[in-house]
Amino acid sequence: MKRDKLGLDRIIFFSDAVFAIAITLLSLDLRLPANTQQDSVGYDLIRLLPEYQSYATSFIVIGLYWISHHHYFRFIRRYDYLFVAINIGLLMCIAALPFATSVLDTYSNHRSAVAFYALCMMLTGLMKTWLWHYATQNFRLVHRRLSVQRIRLLTQRALIPPLVFAASIGLAMLSPALAKLSWGAIALVFF
Amino acid sequence: MKRDKLGLDRIIFFSDAVFAIAITLLSLDLRLPANTQQDSVGYDLIRLLPEYQSYATSFIVIGLYWISHHHYFRFIRRYDYLFVAINIGLLMCIAALPFATSVLDTYSNHRSAVAFYALCMMLTGLMKTWLWHYATQNFRLVHRRLSVQRIRLLTQRALIPPLVFAASIGLAMLSPALAKLSWGAIALVFF
Amino acid sequence: MKRDKLGLDRIIFFSDAVFAIAITLLSLDLRLPANTQQDSVGYDLIRLLPEYQSYATSFIVIGLYWISHHHYFRFIRRYDYLFVAINIGLLMCIAALPFATSVLDTYSNHRSAVAFYALCMMLTGLMKTWLWHYATQNFRLVHRRLSVQRIRLLTQRALIPPLVFAASIGLAMLSPALAKLSWGAIALVFF
Amino acid sequence: MKRDKLGLDRIIFFSDAVFAIAITLLSLDLRLPANTQQDSVGYDLIRLLPEYQSYATSFIVIGLYWISHHHYFRFIRRYDYLFVAINIGLLMCIAALPFATSVLDTYSNHRSAVAFYALCMMLTGLMKTWLWHYATQNFRLVHRRLSVQRIRLLTQRALIPPLVFAASIGLAMLSPALAKLSWGAIALVFF
Repeated sequence: MKRDKLGLDRIIFFSDAVFAIAITLLSLDLRLPANTQQDSVGYDLIRLLPEYQSYATSFIVIGLYWISHHHYFRFIRRYDYLFVAINIGLLMCIAALPFATSVLDTYSNHRSAVAFYALCMMLTGLMKTWLWHYATQNFRLVHRRLSVQRIRLLTQRALIPPLVFAASIGLAMLSPALAKLSWGAIALVFF
Repeated sequence: MKRDKLGLDRIIFFSDAVFAIAITLLSLDLRLPANTQQDSVGYDLIRLLPEYQSYATSFIVIGLYWISHHHYFRFIRRYDYLFVAINIGLLMCIAALPFATSVLDTYSNHRSAVAFYALCMMLTGLMKTWLWHYATQNFRLVHRRLSVQRIRLLTQRALIPPLVFAASIGLAMLSPALAKLSWGAIALVFF
Repeated sequence: MKRDKLGLDRIIFFSDAVFAIAITLLSLDLRLPANTQQDSVGYDLIRLLPEYQSYATSFIVIGLYWISHHHYFRFIRRYDYLFVAINIGLLMCIAALPFATSVLDTYSNHRSAVAFYALCMMLTGLMKTWLWHYATQNFRLVHRRLSVQRIRLLTQRALIPPLVFAASIGLAMLSPALAKLSWGAIALVFF
Repeated sequence: MKRDKLGLDRIIFFSDAVFAIAITLLSLDLRLPANTQQDSVGYDLIRLLPEYQSYATSFIVIGLYWISHHHYFRFIRRYDYLFVAINIGLLMCIAALPFATSVLDTYSNHRSAVAFYALCMMLTGLMKTWLWHYATQNFRLVHRRLSVQRIRLLTQRALIPPLVFAASIGLAMLSPALAKLSWGAIALVFF
């Protein structure tokens, strides 16, 4: 269990860099179709609307995960290498989100695509919950004075998104549109 | 409203990383045509001149936005999560600039392309202005001793580019060349 | 031999950034086949299983190298430019690992592919060992009070993976499957 | 002329990130030919030898530029925004080096390719020299106690590579091989 500040800073820095790269790589999917003609640019730019939407959504999703990472890490004081490993597991999920989003965009109404996206989001949420649970168990890596209530509250808030996404995997088999709607429940919890 | 230094540093760091990735990805567009022959390399390298020009322009545009981000953030002392969210919105615009530039390069004299570029630049500028306005309103996130005059001056300077770009969207419908010329007005303000 | 903190921080930072980019670029290989039909998405997503596996493995391998880099650098106190150069050599190996993994994935049972992967891993491990050996020789760049036993232990642990991988290059000529199995020996040492 | 530490740190950090991305993107050029057959992997991996060589060379060239950036920036104490702008100009050259290298690799014995590479390297070197000259002129951004001799020595060392590359542009017209050989003169100066 290390307390060295530089060591913890490197972990945070490394996470930030992965988040930043994953979020910026999203822009690589913004592309005019190769066969665009000079006189149809305007039309083609408008036809890309779903691509802009998907770019914005993914950017916001990864952005929110980064904000959440930022928020939870403010309570971390020490680290051990299992903690680092779980954090890398979380980053592995984050770096895969652009792929999950592109699947959802290309086949937005297909049940498999919706279920796949929900699965990825569920895994990401579980990783985050595990990271937080591991860090706070018996105040392992957080400050002693962090109140038990606050720890529990943050655990619950971390747990809600993956639970909703898990439920929506089954729902997607019945109706992809309903499953997507259910994701809105997460927003309701936080606002 | 947090004052923790590491928290603010992470926000700045994350922004820098997104800027750095967006600016470096520009170089991915520098490519020899696939069908280059051994004996026409020299000619092909010269024919890429518009690509070099566009690379340099985009690099400078994103670079200037980074300098401006750097400049404005020197006055930020605290943060809250709405501020972080607006900043992510700004980064979303920045990361999309390479796409906007590539559209402008490919169809440089087409009114839709010019208008689209102006639209992106306008959104980026508005985001920056919003970020600054939010931070300085009632000295929310800046130092109390920052003079009201300076805040107002910086707000005005932030507002000029998006206003010019907004006007140039209409202008582009009449004449793309004129619209591009009008962008020069921004430079006049700053030098 | 410099002791300036910022200088050392930049070296660490630069390394972290290269690790982060290499690890995030892995996700670029996650792609649905171009000819996916609307009604076979589910099937296609399942057929990508080897790609997910390879993504996870590569992520973990580079992640472990980063953890190890993090662990060893905690003992570094100073730097000179030969140390920086060896570190860049190590980063050169790290940045090439995604390529080595993609070779192994595409031809997973082919002896050349297995031998090539083992060769890359061996070079990476040797670079890391060299870096550590250079830094600790006569306490060149580490703290005087770091015990000789600990230095030796860390050298030995750094040396085991490249030795196993070197042996597995020969083994791969006889049996690629056996060579891959032998890599498991590394895990045995560390757990 | 600012002295704020965070401001200077951000400039250094941003530069490091651009260097790190440019250097890591080099690995994207390592690719097996698309038509590789299962039974020719070994042969194909060997046939990629020029690609490995070019990867290593580019990695070393950008790495050396980073080391040099690291070395020169140790003397910088303050910054102004013209300094930041010149630094962005230098980064623009750095981010273009992977393209220059790929041109040189694909047409290694063609005079235009050699001249183009020399031109890029010359521009990069001149940018670095300009940055240093600007920072040290009348001790503008460096510590007063930095000796004039040291400043001059570092200026001269910064100036040698661009001068050699400039001369080699003309030489490349006569003999590309001779031009490449002349680049070795730079190494002679530094070792």
